[in-house]
Amino acid sequence: MALSKIMECVPNFSEGRDKEKIEKIVNPFRTRNGVKLLDYSNDEDHNRLVVTVVGEPEPLKEAVLEAVSIAVELIDLTKHQGQHPRMGAVDVIPFIPIKNVTVEDAIALSHEVGKVIGEQYKVPVFLYEKSASAPHRENLAKIRKGEFEGMAEKIHEEEWRPDYGPADRHPTAGTVAVGARMPLVAYNVNLNTADLSIADAIAKKVRFIGGGLRFCKAMGVELTDRGIVQVSMNLTDFTKTAVYRAHEMVRMEAQRYGVSIVGSEVIGLVPMQALIDCAEYYLGIENFKAEQILESRIME
Amino acid sequence: MALSKIMECVPNFSEGRDKEKIEKIVNPFRTRNGVKLLDYSNDEDHNRLVVTVVGEPEPLKEAVLEAVSIAVELIDLTKHQGQHPRMGAVDVIPFIPIKNVTVEDAIALSHEVGKVIGEQYKVPVFLYEKSASAPHRENLAKIRKGEFEGMAEKIHEEEWRPDYGPADRHPTAGTVAVGARMPLVAYNVNLNTADLSIADAIAKKVRFIGGGLRFCKAMGVELTDRGIVQVSMNLTDFTKTAVYRAHEMVRMEAQRYGVSIVGSEVIGLVPMQALIDCAEYYLGIENFKAEQILESRIME
Repeated sequence: MALSKIMECVPNFSEGRDKEKIEKIVNPFRTRNGVKLLDYSNDEDHNRLVVTVVGEPEPLKEAVLEAVSIAVELIDLTKHQGQHPRMGAVDVIPFIPIKNVTVEDAIALSHEVGKVIGEQYKVPVFLYEKSASAPHRENLAKIRKGEFEGMAEKIHEEEWRPDYGPADRHPTAGTVAVGARMPLVAYNVNLNTADLSIADAIAKKVRFIGGGLRFCKAMGVELTDRGIVQVSMNLTDFTKTAVYRAHEMVRMEAQRYGVSIVGSEVIGLVPMQALIDCAEYYLGIENFKAEQILESRIME
Repeated sequence: MALSKIMECVPNFSEGRDKEKIEKIVNPFRTRNGVKLLDYSNDEDHNRLVVTVVGEPEPLKEAVLEAVSIAVELIDLTKHQGQHPRMGAVDVIPFIPIKNVTVEDAIALSHEVGKVIGEQYKVPVFLYEKSASAPHRENLAKIRKGEFEGMAEKIHEEEWRPDYGPADRHPTAGTVAVGARMPLVAYNVNLNTADLSIADAIAKKVRFIGGGLRFCKAMGVELTDRGIVQVSMNLTDFTKTAVYRAHEMVRMEAQRYGVSIVGSEVIGLVPMQALIDCAEYYLGIENFKAEQILESRIME
């Protein structure tokens, strides 16, 4: 599929059990020109469906809106139970710029989608992350706190007035968060020690809230079967906090404990550029252009 | 364009001046489904046209054969002059496996194409590189030695009998080399010295013929405007001689001269995997799969 612009969307729907409903919600992502369904997975315990889809902004928008309208019709939050916190039939819709689109394009798209969901589908919309209308509304967990049940009251508080749509929670579909964010890179660095406190101490230093890298969340994790620990990181903007920088900072902090890196892992999908940036850094490549990558030429 | 299998072909035609003829030769690569023309450039001094095209094996084969038949009709080697050595209207046709195809597939394709060119177009074919029928026929320069003019006699020598086609040189189209090779990565490492003899000495150690890396050709080059030198390398199979290995070997050999690496450059197109391999090496990533790269999923 030749996509000149690529936006990613990872909408989360509150239906993880009813296969028939799941297929109906996913269907709009299968049939539209300029849209490609990469993955969808439902979790019965979470009672939740996560769809990963890419496309040109306009057809992607249309497909997302179609899926949302189906989910609003099919999912009744008053009857929904699951382990994962949720506040709506469609819980969250992040737009992520991948190729030849900017985060500003993703923000614009989140506004367009939010406006339709609010005004036409009558589901109140909170813009979050890069699209947030105020700093206290950037964090999804903060917006969602209280979940569907609590939102009946919370939505009437001054600071939680929705950005689009009615002033009241939709009776069955609740509320939805729509926003732009950068692609997330889940990157873990393994250390040659079994001491979790060392991984924890390093995590605290490399992560943003500890005075570390701006777009890095981190925590220590035990890999009990291997008898080692790891610094598990989420890099929320690899274009500014590069993977190699997080890696080298873990190495640097590990030194004081006489600990070294024994390996690392990338979890799930990663944008090509995040790894190319690492090759460029370590090889010291000058003046490299993304168009030099054979595959990027084929995708044009 | 969704190509599930990707083969690359870089045919060289002996016409670098006549724009009209050039367009006629390139045209078959523009119109066919499953084939994508990435680049073509003609050089008037060399009087030569180099086309870079990718596609699924079958449509790519058809497009190549159509272009060859046009070139055989339009180009007359008895009237051809240029700085670049050449032995035919179509001088050389390399097939290069890129994605979901193996070098064996490329070899098979070179046989199929060679057979048609020999038997139907009546142009004698030498299979070269990985397709060669004997070790002395692997090297293109060796096959081409004597060029179009000398080939009239050379082709009758026992060891230069063509693999396909007539026993005599085609009167106007000469002969052609067809073969499979791995993608070439042109990679140069810059050193913080102006002493060319150091770059030369390092090049001799890292390259295959000097006892170095199996798929590495290298020479020293002066960057006079920057007052430094570089080790200029061609890596002829990056899946076996990785870019990072060549880089680290240059660094290692440079140490004895008190010289260090100040940067590097990748010239022209490079397969994504060649750089991903470097990121994997330097970051020590375990169990990484190409399908984790977002863009590779989009190309499927």
